[in-house]
Formats: sequence, C-alpha cells, structure tokens
Amino acid sequence: MISEISSALNCQMDFAAGVFERLKAVSKDVRGVTRASYGNGEQAAHALMAEIAGELGLEVGQDAAANTYMTWVGQDRSAPIRLVGSHLDSVPQGGNYDGAAGVVSGLVAIRALKSIGYKPRCDITVMGIRAEESCWFGVSYIGSRSALGTLPEGSLETAKRMDNGISLGQHITDCGGDPDKLLAAAPHLDAKKIEAFLEPHIEQGPVLVEAGYPVGIVTGIRGNRRFPNAFVSGEYAHCGGAPRRVRRDAVVAATEFVQALDVLWDKAEAKGDDFACTIGKFNTNADRHAMTVISGEVSFTLDMRSVDAKTLEWLEAEVPRISGEIAKRRGVNINLGPITRAAPGVMDQNLMKTYRDAAEAMSVRAMDIPSGASHDSAAFADAGIPTAMLFIRNENGSHNPDEAMEIEDFIDATKLLAASLSK
Amino acid sequence: MISEISSALNCQMDFAAGVFERLKAVSKDVRGVTRASYGNGEQAAHALMAEIAGELGLEVGQDAAANTYMTWVGQDRSAPIRLVGSHLDSVPQGGNYDGAAGVVSGLVAIRALKSIGYKPRCDITVMGIRAEESCWFGVSYIGSRSALGTLPEGSLETAKRMDNGISLGQHITDCGGDPDKLLAAAPHLDAKKIEAFLEPHIEQGPVLVEAGYPVGIVTGIRGNRRFPNAFVSGEYAHCGGAPRRVRRDAVVAATEFVQALDVLWDKAEAKGDDFACTIGKFNTNADRHAMTVISGEVSFTLDMRSVDAKTLEWLEAEVPRISGEIAKRRGVNINLGPITRAAPGVMDQNLMKTYRDAAEAMSVRAMDIPSGASHDSAAFADAGIPTAMLFIRNENGSHNPDEAMEIEDFIDATKLLAASLSK
Repeated sequence: MISEISSALNCQMDFAAGVFERLKAVSKDVRGVTRASYGNGEQAAHALMAEIAGELGLEVGQDAAANTYMTWVGQDRSAPIRLVGSHLDSVPQGGNYDGAAGVVSGLVAIRALKSIGYKPRCDITVMGIRAEESCWFGVSYIGSRSALGTLPEGSLETAKRMDNGISLGQHITDCGGDPDKLLAAAPHLDAKKIEAFLEPHIEQGPVLVEAGYPVGIVTGIRGNRRFPNAFVSGEYAHCGGAPRRVRRDAVVAATEFVQALDVLWDKAEAKGDDFACTIGKFNTNADRHAMTVISGEVSFTLDMRSVDAKTLEWLEAEVPRISGEIAKRRGVNINLGPITRAAPGVMDQNLMKTYRDAAEAMSVRAMDIPSGASHDSAAFADAGIPTAMLFIRNENGSHNPDEAMEIEDFIDATKLLAASLSK
Repeated sequence: MISEISSALNCQMDFAAGVFERLKAVSKDVRGVTRASYGNGEQAAHALMAEIAGELGLEVGQDAAANTYMTWVGQDRSAPIRLVGSHLDSVPQGGNYDGAAGVVSGLVAIRALKSIGYKPRCDITVMGIRAEESCWFGVSYIGSRSALGTLPEGSLETAKRMDNGISLGQHITDCGGDPDKLLAAAPHLDAKKIEAFLEPHIEQGPVLVEAGYPVGIVTGIRGNRRFPNAFVSGEYAHCGGAPRRVRRDAVVAATEFVQALDVLWDKAEAKGDDFACTIGKFNTNADRHAMTVISGEVSFTLDMRSVDAKTLEWLEAEVPRISGEIAKRRGVNINLGPITRAAPGVMDQNLMKTYRDAAEAMSVRAMDIPSGASHDSAAFADAGIPTAMLFIRNENGSHNPDEAMEIEDFIDATKLLAASLSK
C-alpha cells in the first residue's frame, strides 16, 4: 500500500505544477502574486480550487466566513473527519506558495489516493482558509478562527483592511459570506468532530535548504509574548552642556535593553531552549530629535517567541526585571506597555509519528523542525484538535516573489500527507 | 584699583537688571523670547544695545553682516583693540540670557569703569554678534565668521532660514547689511589688530549650580567629530522564520555600536580625558519596519566632543574600527557616512590667569570649567585671536524659557571682565 501511494504521487508532478501555474495566473501582480485577504486574488484562488475539486468529484461548499471546503466523501459520514488545509491569501506582492501549497497538497493527495482505488473510511476535507496574513486586517487567523468560533469579539466591525479602510464584515459579505450568521449561529467546525488537522506549508526560513532535507516534520509552533508599544522616556538636553552624570538619555538606555535581550538569547541558547527575539521598530521622536540633542524619547516594539510555554513564562518575568534595572541605573523610565500573549501550538505526537514512519517507509528524507512563524495550525491546536504540520523546503524565504519551492519536494511532503490520510 | 572696580560693579545691579527687562520686552514670544537670526527680535535687540551704547557715549557702527560694534574710544586708537562680545539671537521660544548676557556684560563693565574715571589705553569694543544659533540657518557662527572672513563659501545663497526659506544674503540685506560687500571687501575684523576676544556667557549645563560657584573660567571649548548621516544596512526577514545564525539584524548591530561608544566613554573617563558622545537620532525605516520583521535598516546620528584635539583624533580612528568589527560579526554594513570636524577652541592662558587673579583679588568664587557647547569664541580662537570665556551660573539649562541667571552672579562675572579690561 505505502509503495503504491508513493508511486501514485510520483505521477502527480505535472498536475501539481499545472495547478500552481493556474494559481499564479489568476493572482499575478507587477511583482509576484497578490491575494489580499477577502480581495480579488484570494477570491480567484478560492474559485480555482473549487473548480479543480469539482473536477476531482469532491463536494464543494463554504461557510459564513467564505472559507472553502472540498470534501472527499467517506464510507462513514458520521465519523470525525480529517481536515487538510492552509490559507489562500498572500502578502502584497508575495510568492505563489506560502499558504496555497497546503491546499494544493490536499487536493493532490486525494487525486493520488483516488488513482489507486483507495476508499476513505471517513470524510477527508480540504479547507481553503481565508485571511491568515495579519498584514491586511491587523488580525491573524481570521478564516480559521471564524470557522472555529474563536475570532476575537468585535473584529468584524473594528478590523478594517489597511489598504482600503473597509471593515472585515463588509469584506466577508462581498466575498459571499454572511457576517450576521457568523455572529448568531454555532461555529461551522466542531472540534469534537475533527479527528485531525493537517497543514503542509513551505518553510519560511532556510533550515531545510541548509540541512539538505526536502521535508520537515514540525515539532511545535512558537507561541509569543509581544510588547507592541514600548516606550522609554528620559530627558531632552543639550548634548554639549549636560555632563554625563546628569544625562537621562533614552537612546543609551533603550540600546542597552536591546543588548541585554541579546544576552538573554545567549542564555536561552546555552540552556538549549528555543527562543527568538526581535525589535522590529526602534525610533527617536522625529518631532523633537536632533543630532546635538540628547534624546528624551524612544519607542520600540518587542516580539519574543518560543515553542516552550515555560520559556515564555520565564521571559514574561525576566524582561520587566531587566528593563527596570536598566531604567533605574540610567535615570529613565522604560514602560513596556501592554503585553499580548499567544500560546505555543502543540503538535500531536501520534500524527508526528505517522509522518515519521511514512517517511521511513517511503524513503522520504524528513527532519524534525520547530516552526518559528505562526500558522492556522496554532488556532486548530488551540481548539483541542490533534494537529500536525509538514514543512516543504523553500529557498529565499517567504512573503516575497522569490519563494522557490521545487515540485519534487512538494510531492515528497504530499506523500507523507497521503500516507497519513490513508491510515 | 581692583576694589574700586568691584565696588563700582556692585552699583550696576539695577542698571543691568533694567537692560535685561527691556531686552525681554522687545523680543517677547508666547513663551520666553524669540530673537530669530536676522529676524525681528534680533533686530530689536541690536537696536536696543545701540541705543544704550549711545547713552553711554560709545561710538556705534555696524559691518556688512549687520553685526553691531559699540566702541569706547581709547587713548591710542592705533593700538590693537580689546573686543568683548556674544550673540544677540536666540532659539525659538528661548531664554533671555543665552548670548545677550555677554553683550550686556560688556556694556555694564564699561559703565562701571567710566564711573570710576578709568581711561582705556586702547579701544574697547563691545560686539553684538548676529546669528550664532545654528537652528535658524543650519550654519553656526554666521555673524562672527562673516566679520572674520571665515564664513563657508556659498553660505549667503545656499543657507535658507528654516522657518521662511529666505536666503541668508536676503536676510542680511533686510537687516541693513551688505552681502555684496561681504563677498568683495576685506573682512571687517583683522585678527592682528585684536588683542583679545572676551566672551561672557551663561553656563548651559548644571555644573556651576551643583558646585555652588557663580562664575566659571572656561578652560577650552570642545571641538567635535560628527557623523550626521550614519546608516546600518542588514536584511529584512521574517522574525519567526529566520534562525539566529542567518539574521542580519540592523537594530541589534546598531544598538551594540551605541553601547560600544558608551564603553569608549568609560575608557576616556578612566584616562581623565574630556569626552561626550550623543546619538540624537536613531530610527528604523518607517516605510518598511514592522513588529514581526527583522529590521534591515537603521539610520542614526553621532556627535562626539572633546576639548582635546588628541582625543578627537583617537576617536576618528577608533570609532570606524569598532563599527567595522561589529558590522563584520553581525553580518551587516555600518556606513558612518560623511564626517564633519570642528577643532577645539583653545583658550588663552594669560587671559585665564588674569581672570583667576582678579577672582582672587575680588573674592569672586570662580572655578575652571570646560565648555561642552559651542560658542562664537571658537571662531575667534580659530582665527588666532587670544580668547577667553567666562561662564555665569544659570539654572534649568539654556535654549528654553526657564533659564534662570541671578543678577548677582552676572555682576560677579562682569567684575572679572572689567578687571581684565582695565589691565
């Protein structure tokens, strides 16, 4: 059986490549592709996937958030389903594979299993998820959390798309969804009726490329602690007149804090803990700063991630202690501002084992890898659904037109997916 | 003689306070005073000083840059003159004393010396200097360097006042000066014919307040090395996807550089070297930065000062070495950009000794103090003229409406000035 699946997948290369070509054609931008959340490119991608699913004989439907469901009907329709999915939106002028590869992988796996006469015991549903990229509405996992009933309250009215200012609710309506139903009715997906959520996705970093592995089995999705509005207030003063001992220099204090976080990262690494720390924005106040004036203000952002909940708790205690110590010594105030928290996405050990076993049986080179970036899978895992992710090797990072996934690597990952679905 | 001068100055308090009141009245703004370079407030201040000088029987004139000269004619008009001066402009909504105190001090010293029947052997000229504050035209020492013939070429056309965009040349014309003459004729001041340039000025820092001294004898004016357009280029990348070892994080590199400069300051302090270092602006690129994106760009400014030319040379060699080392280790490029240099203003040892001796003889508490900030005196010292500065105690810093100079302290400094002029 396992070698039949492997052979069947080897025959899907041209079909898969053709789907990616058509997907690119319907969402092409000046550079790369643009599939804005609830925008034209995303809408076209959903329509294309539904069309292909129809050709494969799948049942096609959508929920109130306009997510697309493409179901291969199983022998026992009352049994918990197996859900395969990822998102079909992209960042502006992004690549063709981030998100979409997971949906195409689900369809290709079904096509291969059909070709060898496999009959699924339960429904196998491929989900084309809406609006995962937070760059459009400032809210992440909109499609998956809408389906699961966990979208933060008020988002339909308060979240506006950055480029046009139109509300999320209006956008959903325009794409054929039903925001009123989203608020009033029970969630479309019931966690208890989902046996597994499986998401293939291109890797967004260079780990698989560097290690020479086509496929990664994700060990966990990093959770985070974020301070989106941290602020250092010191005192503006003449840079010649103010002696060092009276200075309350916001830049010197804030840069010391950034370096202390770098040392914290060293410590975490030495302990073998997963950790990543990013200060994406760091700014003196353009209305008041000058070359010859000691800066009284710095604003910055802080994003800290780990697959380990304990590490995140440690950071939440340690970071304010460090900033407080520096603030006191430098005579400034460091106000970290509101914190936001996201729990790590715990991957299901049984599903991971199924992937590892399949990789061995099919001679697919696969390695364990943590996910540094966030994914819809985190929303499914958070809802208590057994979840697993596969990463597909990809060069040049993601969120840019230079994403480079080889179709052979895509097929290797889809082999593991198909093997898991056939269990 | 010295005690006569001291007593005579004690009788000038009301006069001096009255002059400052009138000065404030002619340049009052919503907050503090505004005497824009070649603007209404400065013009009114020059007119007021000329009026008072006329009442004191001084010769009043102006040069092609509209600097005001108020001369107490001496017995030998061919002898090198003694020049007392400071600037009459202010920053927007600044204080009443920064600059103006030096001009008033000169007039008050003459009034006191006249009151005791002193006859000057050479001309003693009080100079009301134009446009010292670089906030108006982006060029410093405009008045003094115009008089000395050292204003950078092209400034009359290229320098525009920040608030109205009108050229320096036009502004000079509007204030009764003659830019054509400034370009064609010999400089108004001939360094060889100036025995000394003496500038009293309020202290812009808190040193005298903290030490409890009314007067400071300036030991030197800091020179500087500046990098107004430093730039770090790394690589933008997804903060979750990019592992630490591949990151080329401009923020982490630039903050390490700032901290290394702070360590350099520690080293200079340990050696007893004068040094001050300021990063006034520090910014990620607002068009591309985001909380979850590793920043590929940081721009910053760097101002480094010392009274010691050797220290400045050491910095000019050391700083690029440090930035190069960090850049290499962090995988970024640190381009410090163009450097600008200003030589330290060397104070005349004989004039300083005269001040110290006078302080002792008159029981005026005076301490040695370096000038962290820049002053017109640097332009005179740079022209080879023996130069000395006195600082007057002042609370709350300068360049703000809260400057607080006590008239008693002003009189103490003016006693030293008068004693020096009577030598």
